Amino acid sequence: MRLNIVLLSGGSGKRLWPLSNDTRSKQFIKIFKIMAGEYESMVQRVYRQILSVDQTAEVTIATSKSQVSAIHNQLGQNVGISVEPCRRDTFPAIALAVAYLHDVKKVSPKEPVVVCPVDPYVEQDYFKALHKLSNRAEASEANLVLMGIEPTYPSAKYGYIIPENTDDISKVSMFKEKPDEDTAREYMKKGALWNGGVFAFRLGYVLERAHELIDFTDYQDLYTKYETLTKISFDYAVVEHETMIEVMRFGGMWKDMGTWNTLTEAMENESIGKAILSDTCDNVHVVNELDVPVLCMGLKDVVVAASPEGILVSDKMQSSYIKPYVDEIDQQIMFAEKSWGSFRVIDIEEGSMTIKVTLNPGHGMNYHSHERRDEVWTVVEGEGRTLVDGVERKVTAGDVIRMAAGVPHKIMADTLLQVIEVQIGEDISVSDKKKWNH
Amino acid sequence: MRLNIVLLSGGSGKRLWPLSNDTRSKQFIKIFKIMAGEYESMVQRVYRQILSVDQTAEVTIATSKSQVSAIHNQLGQNVGISVEPCRRDTFPAIALAVAYLHDVKKVSPKEPVVVCPVDPYVEQDYFKALHKLSNRAEASEANLVLMGIEPTYPSAKYGYIIPENTDDISKVSMFKEKPDEDTAREYMKKGALWNGGVFAFRLGYVLERAHELIDFTDYQDLYTKYETLTKISFDYAVVEHETMIEVMRFGGMWKDMGTWNTLTEAMENESIGKAILSDTCDNVHVVNELDVPVLCMGLKDVVVAASPEGILVSDKMQSSYIKPYVDEIDQQIMFAEKSWGSFRVIDIEEGSMTIKVTLNPGHGMNYHSHERRDEVWTVVEGEGRTLVDGVERKVTAGDVIRMAAGVPHKIMADTLLQVIEVQIGEDISVSDKKKWNH
Repeated sequence: MRLNIVLLSGGSGKRLWPLSNDTRSKQFIKIFKIMAGEYESMVQRVYRQILSVDQTAEVTIATSKSQVSAIHNQLGQNVGISVEPCRRDTFPAIALAVAYLHDVKKVSPKEPVVVCPVDPYVEQDYFKALHKLSNRAEASEANLVLMGIEPTYPSAKYGYIIPENTDDISKVSMFKEKPDEDTAREYMKKGALWNGGVFAFRLGYVLERAHELIDFTDYQDLYTKYETLTKISFDYAVVEHETMIEVMRFGGMWKDMGTWNTLTEAMENESIGKAILSDTCDNVHVVNELDVPVLCMGLKDVVVAASPEGILVSDKMQSSYIKPYVDEIDQQIMFAEKSWGSFRVIDIEEGSMTIKVTLNPGHGMNYHSHERRDEVWTVVEGEGRTLVDGVERKVTAGDVIRMAAGVPHKIMADTLLQVIEVQIGEDISVSDKKKWNH
Repeated sequence: MRLNIVLLSGGSGKRLWPLSNDTRSKQFIKIFKIMAGEYESMVQRVYRQILSVDQTAEVTIATSKSQVSAIHNQLGQNVGISVEPCRRDTFPAIALAVAYLHDVKKVSPKEPVVVCPVDPYVEQDYFKALHKLSNRAEASEANLVLMGIEPTYPSAKYGYIIPENTDDISKVSMFKEKPDEDTAREYMKKGALWNGGVFAFRLGYVLERAHELIDFTDYQDLYTKYETLTKISFDYAVVEHETMIEVMRFGGMWKDMGTWNTLTEAMENESIGKAILSDTCDNVHVVNELDVPVLCMGLKDVVVAASPEGILVSDKMQSSYIKPYVDEIDQQIMFAEKSWGSFRVIDIEEGSMTIKVTLNPGHGMNYHSHERRDEVWTVVEGEGRTLVDGVERKVTAGDVIRMAAGVPHKIMADTLLQVIEVQIGEDISVSDKKKWNH
């Protein structure tokens, strides 16, 4: 049977600031080495791993609008995406993905579906286990089959699943929310397993639950009324009311990539990007996305992360408490991936902003104008075409294009195109944008 | 008697990287708080302190060509500068400054001159001591009067002066080079003093020694043949051959600002620039010149310094071993102060470089051209005039000026003027510059 996988590609991931932010989630950070000088992101890694175990797998990424560009940039145009118009917690998200599989991808209600988060750091055996989970969900009497991860230490960070016995597959006796370490130790003695948020079911089962709880006809209808749905988690809406639940043990490598501490454990080298670590450094990791070097001397158990958004220097254990500090930072977005490429803010002044725009070959911006700012493009690399006030011209490195406020414009890349854009105006804002038909 | 002070403004100061580099020395970093949001540099602080103790003091800064712009930017146009055409160690530098005082400033050979480095962190009592040193040099039979700093700990970083007795003013018995800590402890028991490189003499004395060792007529002649002079220190050329040397004790506050460790001791706040320090940080200092925040968590005894050149994260004690690491960094200069203002590199690509140019009101660049690159200026703030291929025009925010390779150009600021300059060419280099008469 075909493997249907729904990857939950979650929220803004402030816990990996400054590499993740409101527009750029941790799953898109290229941090895992594939070969000398080449890195892949969490989402690229998991997608590659799924396909290497099963090329026919039907992968659907359940995500928000804001991540669609980044997913296409990193995985190409062919990946299935179930786009949440807004955030409504995991039950609506999974319901939408299931409706998408049923109505758009024509998956039968009898077929099993595996749901898993995009962010654990795992090896091939994990994906083989997903296959087993899927097969079990199809054949089992149970309505839900969970993956239970064998704990490696008494963690206070995870929920626990208490199975009825220690067989490979067992009925679930109880769920326990994040315990303290002593309690976690007791759970471990009883054979408890971590709940990593991985589970499988027959598509029809969740579709039925969705229709019970939400009044909708099909995927398109659910999509349209998504904004009106109540926020509710899948655990609360489904799992807590279900008695026919099994758990399947998984004893392979599984690392949660939620914090800098755990993320650096998965790094093959002590640094990515320009970094110099003195001999007096011990257990130090550097992730540097800037063009200038980071020099570390005499540090122990420290992570340094530098991006256009800011610089983090933290004791590794302390790094898990980052969120409230990042919440306080009210910072202009300095870097964003777009469907057509990316941009980076390189200078901010009162009355002006300068950005570097990179367009991928064959891509272009929408035709748009701004009310309250003039813009100047200087092409620094590549070839493309501009359309300004209805007039198209070819452009190449050295060409300069001026656009007064109100004049519609766009640029399209024939090769990889890099442009320095200077924005001049008193009230520069991303919301000052009017779309035009071209 | 008038106080003549020669401030030795030394070399490139890599030990305070990334805030100092080949073109920007530590003495120009604005790191000392004067009031909320306002900071001054070492050279600004020492200059202000001298004038606040004695408004009539004749201050001459002995420095290299490369620092002249920065000195004028920070101290204005009226400060005396003795410019070394190239670096030739301290004896030629002091000889040149003395000739400058004699021939340009018309200081009499009988007048005392005080020489001191620009970089110690001191209070008013130090400058009062310089006065006493100057008066003593004028009146004393001794040819040299040194300041001896009362040691606060047995440092292995400084040279020691052993006086004949513990009077305020004593003959010097011996000089001792940097000892180990145990030896330093022995010296301290004998009343030894640190040699901070501060001394006074009658101008005629050093001028005579200079004429004995160097064949020159006057200041202009010495300046012209400066490049041919042998590198030799003042200690080696003068002090070691002189028997009539006195030392005057100084018991006030004196901190050497040579390393990040000592520099941060002089900082009034734990951070300068955008920085967030968690409660779990202990003895952490941040100096951040970037526009984005630095977040520190769970660190102890660490200094973080971030500038357009790079990022340092170091244990404070370890920071004194920085030099060999910085020597290895082969980095494009990212920021420089110029006579007309400053520039900052904001983007580097193969085939292009983008810089932000800030011109001070009333200043302008030289008229020049480049052989191997086109340039585009986009004015983002202020008003000024450009001269391109002989044609002058007024420019203001939003104006764009294009200069093809070979075309002479300059820009002059009527108000503070900020320009984004995009350079496009295959072989961009600071040496690709031809000066024109205008």
